[in-house]
Formats: sequence, C-alpha cells, structure tokens
Amino acid sequence: MLAPNTIYQDLLTLVRKAALLGSCGSVLGWDRETYMPVGGNEHRANQLSMLAGLAHEWSVNPKIGELLGQLQDSEFNDAPDSDSAANIREISRSYQRSRKLPQRLVEEISRVTALAQHHWATARSNGDFTVFVPWLKQIIDLKREEASAVGFSEGGEPYDALLDEYEPGANSAGIATVFAGLRSELVPLLDAVKGSTKQPDTSILSREYAVEQQAKFGRMASAAIGFDFDKGRLDVTTHPFCSGFGPGDCRLTTRYDKNFFSSAFFGTLHESGHGIYEQGLPESAFGTPLGSAVSLGIHESQSRMWENLVGRSSAFWTHFYPHAQTFFPQALGNTSREDFHFAINAVNPSFIRVEADEVTYNLHIMLRFDLERDLIAGRLQAEDVPEAWNSRFTSDFGITPPTDADGCLQDVHWSAGLFGYFPTYALGNMYAAQFFEAAEEQIGDLQGTFAKGDFQPLLQWLREHIHHHGQRFSASRLVEVVTGKPLSDQPLTRQLNNRFRPLYGI
Amino acid sequence: MLAPNTIYQDLLTLVRKAALLGSCGSVLGWDRETYMPVGGNEHRANQLSMLAGLAHEWSVNPKIGELLGQLQDSEFNDAPDSDSAANIREISRSYQRSRKLPQRLVEEISRVTALAQHHWATARSNGDFTVFVPWLKQIIDLKREEASAVGFSEGGEPYDALLDEYEPGANSAGIATVFAGLRSELVPLLDAVKGSTKQPDTSILSREYAVEQQAKFGRMASAAIGFDFDKGRLDVTTHPFCSGFGPGDCRLTTRYDKNFFSSAFFGTLHESGHGIYEQGLPESAFGTPLGSAVSLGIHESQSRMWENLVGRSSAFWTHFYPHAQTFFPQALGNTSREDFHFAINAVNPSFIRVEADEVTYNLHIMLRFDLERDLIAGRLQAEDVPEAWNSRFTSDFGITPPTDADGCLQDVHWSAGLFGYFPTYALGNMYAAQFFEAAEEQIGDLQGTFAKGDFQPLLQWLREHIHHHGQRFSASRLVEVVTGKPLSDQPLTRQLNNRFRPLYGI
Repeated sequence: MLAPNTIYQDLLTLVRKAALLGSCGSVLGWDRETYMPVGGNEHRANQLSMLAGLAHEWSVNPKIGELLGQLQDSEFNDAPDSDSAANIREISRSYQRSRKLPQRLVEEISRVTALAQHHWATARSNGDFTVFVPWLKQIIDLKREEASAVGFSEGGEPYDALLDEYEPGANSAGIATVFAGLRSELVPLLDAVKGSTKQPDTSILSREYAVEQQAKFGRMASAAIGFDFDKGRLDVTTHPFCSGFGPGDCRLTTRYDKNFFSSAFFGTLHESGHGIYEQGLPESAFGTPLGSAVSLGIHESQSRMWENLVGRSSAFWTHFYPHAQTFFPQALGNTSREDFHFAINAVNPSFIRVEADEVTYNLHIMLRFDLERDLIAGRLQAEDVPEAWNSRFTSDFGITPPTDADGCLQDVHWSAGLFGYFPTYALGNMYAAQFFEAAEEQIGDLQGTFAKGDFQPLLQWLREHIHHHGQRFSASRLVEVVTGKPLSDQPLTRQLNNRFRPLYGI
Repeated sequence: MLAPNTIYQDLLTLVRKAALLGSCGSVLGWDRETYMPVGGNEHRANQLSMLAGLAHEWSVNPKIGELLGQLQDSEFNDAPDSDSAANIREISRSYQRSRKLPQRLVEEISRVTALAQHHWATARSNGDFTVFVPWLKQIIDLKREEASAVGFSEGGEPYDALLDEYEPGANSAGIATVFAGLRSELVPLLDAVKGSTKQPDTSILSREYAVEQQAKFGRMASAAIGFDFDKGRLDVTTHPFCSGFGPGDCRLTTRYDKNFFSSAFFGTLHESGHGIYEQGLPESAFGTPLGSAVSLGIHESQSRMWENLVGRSSAFWTHFYPHAQTFFPQALGNTSREDFHFAINAVNPSFIRVEADEVTYNLHIMLRFDLERDLIAGRLQAEDVPEAWNSRFTSDFGITPPTDADGCLQDVHWSAGLFGYFPTYALGNMYAAQFFEAAEEQIGDLQGTFAKGDFQPLLQWLREHIHHHGQRFSASRLVEVVTGKPLSDQPLTRQLNNRFRPLYGI
C-alpha cells in the first residue's frame, strides 16, 4: 500500500483534472450565451455534451473510491476541519452521490430536460400550461427516481435528496421552519407597507439612462466594491449570470434597458457579488473542495449582500449618488438622493420573481418551495399546478396572475430539472443578513465606510471569514463558525424592518 | 471479426470524438486572444495543455491502428477517391505520424516553445538576437529529432518531414523548383516596377478612416463575398486569424488602424477567405478527413484569392468604390477610383513580411524557406541567422534591415517550432492563381460579375470544386483534378504581370 500522502495527492490529482475539464465546459457555456453565432448551437451542444459525459465518467472513476477507502482511517482524516479532512469529506460526498446515480438516469434526465426546455418556452410564450404538462410529469418522475437512488435521512423526505445537490446538508423540515419564521415577519411588514400613505416615485427609475453610461457606471461600482477586472469581465446576455472559470478568470454578464435603471445596475452588483466570491476562493486550491464555493445558498448570500444590503443602503448612495448625477444629468439632475433611494427600495407585490423587491421576493420562493415539495412527494399533480399556484399567489400577494406566463410558467428551473434549487435563493438572503450583522458587529461602523466609498473593510472581512475557507465548513457550520449562531430568520427580518419601516413611515 | 462497415464506423467515431475535443480547445484558444482577461493566462494554459494532452492520447489510441489494419484490404479501401478510401488514407497518415512521435518529444517541444516565445518577444522588442539564440538552438535540435522520428522519402531531406505536417505530400525539392520558376519572373517584374516613373500615391491610404466605419465596411464586404455571419463572427485581436470551431461556427479576427485603410480591410477579406473555406466544408463530415481542410497551402489559397485576386482587382472596386466613398467621404470623396486602386496595389520592397505587397511577398517567403532548410540540415547555425538574413535580404530587396526586429526576429513561427510552415504561404499564392485561372476559364466573365458586386459564381465554383471535397484529394492531386495541370508558377506570374505592368506603365 502506498504512503497516505501519496494516496491523498493522487486523489487530489484526480479531482483537479475533472475540475479542469469542467472549467473548459464553463468557457464554452459562457461563449454560447455571449458571442456564439446562432448557427453554432448544435455543434456547441455536441461539444458540451461530450465534455459533460467525460466529466461524469471521471467523477465516478472507481479509483476515487479506492483512494478514499484507503484514506478513511489515516492521519489525513483525523482533525475534522483540517485541509485534508475537509477535502476528503467533500470529495467523498460528491463521489457517493455521483455513484448512486445510474448512468442511464443521468443521460435520461439530460435528454428529457434538454427537450423539455423548448416545450416550456413554447408553453410560456403561448401562456398554455397544458403543452408543458407531459414534460413536467416526466421530469418529476425522473427526479423522484433520482431522489430514491440518492436516498435521504430517516424521517426526511425524497425532496431532501434533491435539495442536497444544491445545499448540501440542508433538509426540507429545517428550511420549512426558518421559512415559517421569516414569513410571520414579512406578512405584517408587507401589509404595513401597502397601507402606508407614503409611497416612492418609481418613475424616477424609468427615465432615460443611456446604455453606454449605464455600462460605465456599473463597471465603476463593480470595481469599487472589489470585483477585479484584471481577472474578469462583464458582458451582455439576455439572462445575467456569473461563471467562474478558475483562478484569474471570472465572467459576469448583465442586460441593459435604457428606460430602466435598476435592472442593469443592481444586476451588475448582484453578479459582482458572485464574482467577488469566486475571485476570493483560494487559487492554489482550484479544483479541490477547499478551492470551491460551499453551496448555492452561500453563493447567493454574497450576491444578495452586495446587491441589497450594501447597494440599496442609504450610505452606499451617500457616496455614489453624486456620481450617478454626473453620469445621468438629465435623469437625476433634479432628483434628490432621498427620493432616488426610496425609489430603489420600493416594495410592491408583483408577479415576476426576478423583478420582486426584497420583502416580497422571499414569499415568491416559499410558494415555489411548498409546491415543488408537494410535487416530489406526490401530494400535487403536474396538471394541478396552475390552480395551486394561483390560489396560493392570490392569498399571499393579493393579486392573481392574469396568465400562467406571469405565474407558474415564469421560471426555467422545473423544465431544466432543477427541483430543490429555489429555496437556496431565500436561504441566501438569510445567510447574507446574518453574515452582514456579524460583519457590522466585528468591524464597527460599516455604514460609515460605505458613505466614504470604502468597501475594503467588508470585502476583507468576507475574504477572511467566508471566501478563504472554500468548502472547509458546510453551509450550516459556516454560519455558526462565522456568526456564533445557527441560521435564523431574525437578522433578515430585523434588517428589512429597519430599512423599510422608516422609508415608508410605518 | 466485425463486419467491415462496423469497423469503419467505429473508426470514424474515434476520430470524430478526438476532433470534437479539439474543437473545444479552439474555443478556448479563440477566447484567449479575444476576450480573456490578463489574469486568466495561467489557468488557460493549464486548460489548453490538458485538452492537447488528451487529444494526443486519443490520436495515438492503438485501437485506431487495429481498425485501420482490419480495413486495409476491405471494400472500404477499394476505390481510391471514394469517401471511405479517402478517410482511411488520411486517418492512417495522421495516425502513423502521431505514433512515430514519442510522447516525451511532443511534451518537450510544447514546453520549450511555450517558454521560447517569451524570449523571442523579449529579443524582438530589444532588437537583440543573442537572447533568442539558445532557444532557437534547442528548438532546432528538437525539430531535427522530430524529423528523424517521422522520417522522409529516400532522396529527401529531414526538412521534408516537417513540411509534411503542414503540406502533406509536398517536399523541399519540388517546392524549390516552383519557387525558382516564380523567382525568375518576380525579380525582373520588381526591377521594372522600381524603375518606373509612374508611382502610386499611397498617402491616400493613410488618411483618417474612422474605426467604426472600417468595421462596418469590412463586414459588408465580407458578407458580400460569402462569409455567413449567422455561422460566424468577426472580432478584434492583435494578430488576425481565422478559427473554425466546427459546423455553423467560424470565428474571424482583424485589427483596425484609424490611419491606415488596408490593414483591416484586406485583413478582413483574407480571414473571410479562410472562413468561407471552413464554412464550405461538408458539415455532416465534421471530424473526419472528408470534412477537413486539405492543407495549409490550400487554406491560404482561399484567403489570398479573396484578398488579392478578387479584393485588389479593378472590377471589385468598380462595385465597391462608390460604397467606400460613402463610408469615408472625408478620406476618399475627392480621390478617383483609379488612384485608389493604384494605391492598394503599390509595390514597394519593405522589411516586414505581413505588410508586403504581392510581388515582394513571395521573395520574403523564399528567403525564410532557404534559411530554415539550411538550419534543419545543419548547414546554417542559429547564431549566424542575422548575418545570413541580412545579406540575403539586401541582395533580394536592395535594402538592409536596420535591426533584427525588422529582420530575422519579425515572425513568431520559429519560436513556436513551426519549421516548414512558411512555404505554405507562397504555395497558397500559387494555388490561388492556378485555381482562379481555372475558375475564369470555366465560369466565363468573372470580372464582370465582380463589377456588379456578384460573387456567387466564384463562391459556388469554389464550393463545388474545392471546399466540398474536404481531404478527398491531396493538395497536389486537387490542383490537377481542378485545373487539369500540376502546380506551376505560371498562373501567378501571369496574373501579377497582367495586373502590375499596366498599373506601372511598364
């Protein structure tokens, strides 16, 4: 038998190679969304499918299992939070998960979801859910099969197995509990906001904002909060995203609307938050768990923190508003900072999740979480989704989607097989608020630094307490290690109340 | 033993898979030159090196050799120009070549040339050849080792083995013969041009040409001659190139100089010519020899034909000059078409190959061809290159490079290990002229179609007689099949004389 160190290094070499291959796929995926000519679609699908197949083949290489077995009782697996133990824990977790999925099922899910997305798009543009029903049924069946192949803890439910892919260690019951707490605070806040006579003038944001100026202003803010443009780019796509290719190369995208300020600006801050996390992962650990993001929820905590907790704060605009007025003299020259700040913090129930404000956003997520849990559990049938959606939406938001395109057909996730993904968005909001409170406690006057345009104190704190760790801790442990407490809805509700009650005079 | 058809299909599957992987590398290579942030360089090198290693591993898969062996005497290898026989011939050729190269040598060449390019760049920017000497020595030794591993025909020389990588089937002696013929015509033509009292006003081309207008004009011309922008793009890079990713996706690049018209415009036509060839290869044969370009020389024939034989013709500007005047009213509003046409056809000895006119260009190539043959044969030592270069240059061009940056350090090729590459440029010019004469004979009044802005007759002829064949024929056979004659310098010299003698009144 080889020396444990050799075994450990061999293990890292195998996973690094797979990650390097995966990162080639990221480049091709980014290019597809940004610059690829329409004619390249089919060939690109072939390229990506080959890379994905190869990556899966490598990820279930039995050699990984052998090496993991040999390391189980070695000194490399002794101290729970050590580099090696964390790497072994996470490599083992994802290896076990991959091995449990039959190749046939992986390919079938990939095939069916590729086709389903086309039918979902048709259903959405025609506002006709029935077109999508047979595909949704098939996908639910496949995801239930996946859930039963992966398995879940005693007392849990099949949905947990799906959730675990995006938020390792989380489970439905735990999420339902924090969501319930959050909900009990959001509903009265929303009611109070709706009942207030003080309302923002949101037309400020729909004036003319020249696209080139928006691009310059967004890049300036992105660089100011810490995104390194020597190690990244910002391009334009229909659906904004962030893709970290690996050390020194992280790509952000956004979209511009010359008659709407918020979409590109807050979108850029949001993706910059993701990018700053990617750029903060230890470069030398690329391809290993210690060089990788913890979970989707933690990733989202970074984007939402910069977008909302920083970017919609009063202090942020103390610094940036004079710049905004210089960039957009026509639109903002005669508008006060206070009016602008109120407008970017408008709360208003609306149908579309991605356009929702911070208060109603989480209600959008809870609706999806409950519905997809029911779908996977078999308590809700695919054909009954529109009715379930609309009745829940009406009761939560007081308005009813006029068409399914404004309701249950709005998101791509289900057609792509991404069951268990939605809750990570709301978890991200809660993580963000809890981290942010800890940062304020530990750093001191954060708002004062923002007002001076200095984002280094927060950035460095995030680098040290979150980014730098990679996957050393699970998401739930990271929250405890960083904030001293388990995840709670309280920091988020506190911050929402603190920001929105004064603004709305309630 | 399997049925021959199964064996043949298995063989194609293997080579297609390798080509698909190679095409992923092309995307990463393109992105590196166009959009990659500086910080991504090292990670990109790791990605590309892994893909290249994997591609080499797959290309020497012994299974390919087995399948080829089983097909040798089958019906699939019967009729020499059939689809299957051509595929088998070319797969076998490149498999044999790859198998002869020890993995160690492949890696060493890749490692040394990657390092050498940095030292060449330093040497070039400092005009100090001595910095580059030790690297050039190493590369020459490695390339000689490669040549002896690959082998060459009896009566040939080691350089043939290197040439064969870029222009399969060509050999030094044959090239030397056509070059000698070409030279004997070029020298008196150049002398006559230099002695003429009629000279163009080239300052026309150095007026101000707004970059955005250049880009629009270039794209218009590129689309007009047949480059399909639904299946390709045009971006900006320091060193222009064309990269065909596969069916439906071909990328061109160019560079703009607001005070020089020719660089971007003729560069765009040149790369469009490459791209039109890539777009004309049979899509369904992607990844097999029948879906691949014949050789670098044939590829260059397509770029040089559109750039020079079409793009610098009088007929081309009959159609395009009014457009040019509309795009650049300040620069060209008061300039006659005749003066403009003479300016873009100026012949003038100069130091830099990529800026050379059509008459002197081939003399640049011949100089390099002779020197690199001598280097590989051991008749010339690395440290003696500057002297050999300058003395030959002075005798051929009547001027002496003031520094080695204007002389033997100007091209990247040797530092990249590309010995045997240069002659394909001049071969391309000769192939282009010979094809073009055949096209004119077979189609009729080509110039008349150009003058009307109609490039379809030439495009369709090239599609049918050249692009469509992929590698069905070797380069030399293709020339015979298409033109009825072996490669000759006569068509090129005829066309150069016919264009330049009237212009210069000689």
